[in-house]
Amino acid sequence: MQKQCGAQSIKFENPPVIISGAAVVGPKEGEGPLAKYFDEISSDILFGQSSWEQAESEMVRKGIELAVQKANLTMDQIRYILAGDLLNQGTGSTFGVRSLNRPFFGLFGACSTMGEAMSLGSILIDGGYADYVVSAASSHFCGAEKTFRFPLELGGQRAPTAGWTVTGDGAIVLAKEGDGPRVTAITTGKIIDMGIKDVNNMGAAMAPAAADVMVAHFRDLGISADYYDQIVTGDLGHVGSELLIQLMEKEGYDVSKNSTDCGIEIFDATKQNTLAGGSGCGCSAVTMAGYLLHKLRKKEINKLLFIPTGAMHSVVTAQQGESIPGMAHAVAIENM
Amino acid sequence: MQKQCGAQSIKFENPPVIISGAAVVGPKEGEGPLAKYFDEISSDILFGQSSWEQAESEMVRKGIELAVQKANLTMDQIRYILAGDLLNQGTGSTFGVRSLNRPFFGLFGACSTMGEAMSLGSILIDGGYADYVVSAASSHFCGAEKTFRFPLELGGQRAPTAGWTVTGDGAIVLAKEGDGPRVTAITTGKIIDMGIKDVNNMGAAMAPAAADVMVAHFRDLGISADYYDQIVTGDLGHVGSELLIQLMEKEGYDVSKNSTDCGIEIFDATKQNTLAGGSGCGCSAVTMAGYLLHKLRKKEINKLLFIPTGAMHSVVTAQQGESIPGMAHAVAIENM
Repeated sequence: MQKQCGAQSIKFENPPVIISGAAVVGPKEGEGPLAKYFDEISSDILFGQSSWEQAESEMVRKGIELAVQKANLTMDQIRYILAGDLLNQGTGSTFGVRSLNRPFFGLFGACSTMGEAMSLGSILIDGGYADYVVSAASSHFCGAEKTFRFPLELGGQRAPTAGWTVTGDGAIVLAKEGDGPRVTAITTGKIIDMGIKDVNNMGAAMAPAAADVMVAHFRDLGISADYYDQIVTGDLGHVGSELLIQLMEKEGYDVSKNSTDCGIEIFDATKQNTLAGGSGCGCSAVTMAGYLLHKLRKKEINKLLFIPTGAMHSVVTAQQGESIPGMAHAVAIENM
Repeated sequence: MQKQCGAQSIKFENPPVIISGAAVVGPKEGEGPLAKYFDEISSDILFGQSSWEQAESEMVRKGIELAVQKANLTMDQIRYILAGDLLNQGTGSTFGVRSLNRPFFGLFGACSTMGEAMSLGSILIDGGYADYVVSAASSHFCGAEKTFRFPLELGGQRAPTAGWTVTGDGAIVLAKEGDGPRVTAITTGKIIDMGIKDVNNMGAAMAPAAADVMVAHFRDLGISADYYDQIVTGDLGHVGSELLIQLMEKEGYDVSKNSTDCGIEIFDATKQNTLAGGSGCGCSAVTMAGYLLHKLRKKEINKLLFIPTGAMHSVVTAQQGESIPGMAHAVAIENM
């Protein structure tokens, strides 16, 4: 069997099994519609630490340890940890895995990181390079606001197109054997930049990247949009998701019936005042490791296309007047 | 043949070939001892751009395009680009590859990034997931000073243990077939943090990670230190390299005869006032893609252990009083 599939996809010969997942989230996520799918909801946004950055690393450690524990494994059975986050120099992940003593690949795909971690993790399993890997991604609302926007104390007004960064770490364990849904294919995204410069509308900046990788996925695998029970994008939110449906329609695909977005699912936008919806690396990661994995296991979804999306900019590039490059990675997960 | 080798290494069944490499550097690197091995030396630290960040992205684009051109390939034959840098949210790489229209995996391993990019790139080739990939890493002196230290205009005095961030992008093309040295094995590093907090002495923070991965490599492959003609670490510089030799001696390995460091080789510390030596993701990347690849091709080195090293901290973690986690990835490259 040919592993390379079309121009930018891989179909796995030995589809890796998602044998466990863990989602550790903050208080606001614990008040949202997906609360019952999360493993641990902290009532303390600081997770007992003294800074937001330390809080994120603590979530990362907890999420990974819990996923490994739920897989009935010990940490030393994990061949690789692949993880990333939004903080400068990825310190949420680095400091989070510091005590775990495992070989580590640090990733940066902005909010598409969970897709990247699952893609590379699946390659490591499928290729026989590892028996077990952990793929993880995290974000922290306060850490992200501090990194990208304004001091929280300022209490600035938010734009209606702005997302709300999820506080959470999602971690999954991929294995060569076991019970669970399997990663059957991946499509790796390209940087797509349509010139959007509004940092308060990242859904619009990322939607073209999601459309691009989705079209590539369908084309490479020779399937149509209705092959999947659900197509779940990363964190386009309400604004970006509408754009995505329009962009896909232009390409001749109707995804209006079977697509949704982690940023839409994770919060009740009206009751929780989260505007365009959830965002951040943690948004798609906890939705995957909690909610979507549950639905796959219960066979409520049997064929899922998971497409975390990322806005690959920084404060410096935005201040220099640069546009926001979008990224998205597609991961096909199926009950077999 | 078993791909997994020992606790944290891989021995490749189909060792990927380094079919080309390109190094694009700034003016200071062009005045150093390795100048003749670099493909392009810019006399303009801005590379014709209007900011240091844009300059870095321009280097990235040039380096990757040149490596692909030297391999007699077109960009669309490259299945994946794997790259990373030191800037917040890895924008040096993202904006650099934006126009190249290739599937992209963004990485963060601080100055160990070239080791990570070559490790994952080699897995993609060995496993049959790609015929050609580009592995690249970059840094820019001015961008790094701005990100991590003080405004250049301040003209602050530098500590004798401080490194000098290399301005450069190093890119290599890995292929399943062709002429050139081959990546025969990799050992993936763990985060090693010995509690060093001095951001002006990153050699000391990284040396234990280099020692840890080197010992793991020798142990996993069942070889001794003299198996390699040369062991070349990433950017420990003069201070870190001395520590590494001492740490390895404690572990029972004598690497005093056959080891050196990219940070030592790239500058003439006395004449160029570069203190502890070169550093930054670009340091090991351009030394590999330029100088070391040349030596391998000329058979002046036949067995090389390349170990880029990284300090996985940020300004925020340093200001919060955290220590500096070290990282190192070992890549064995041999003429076969």
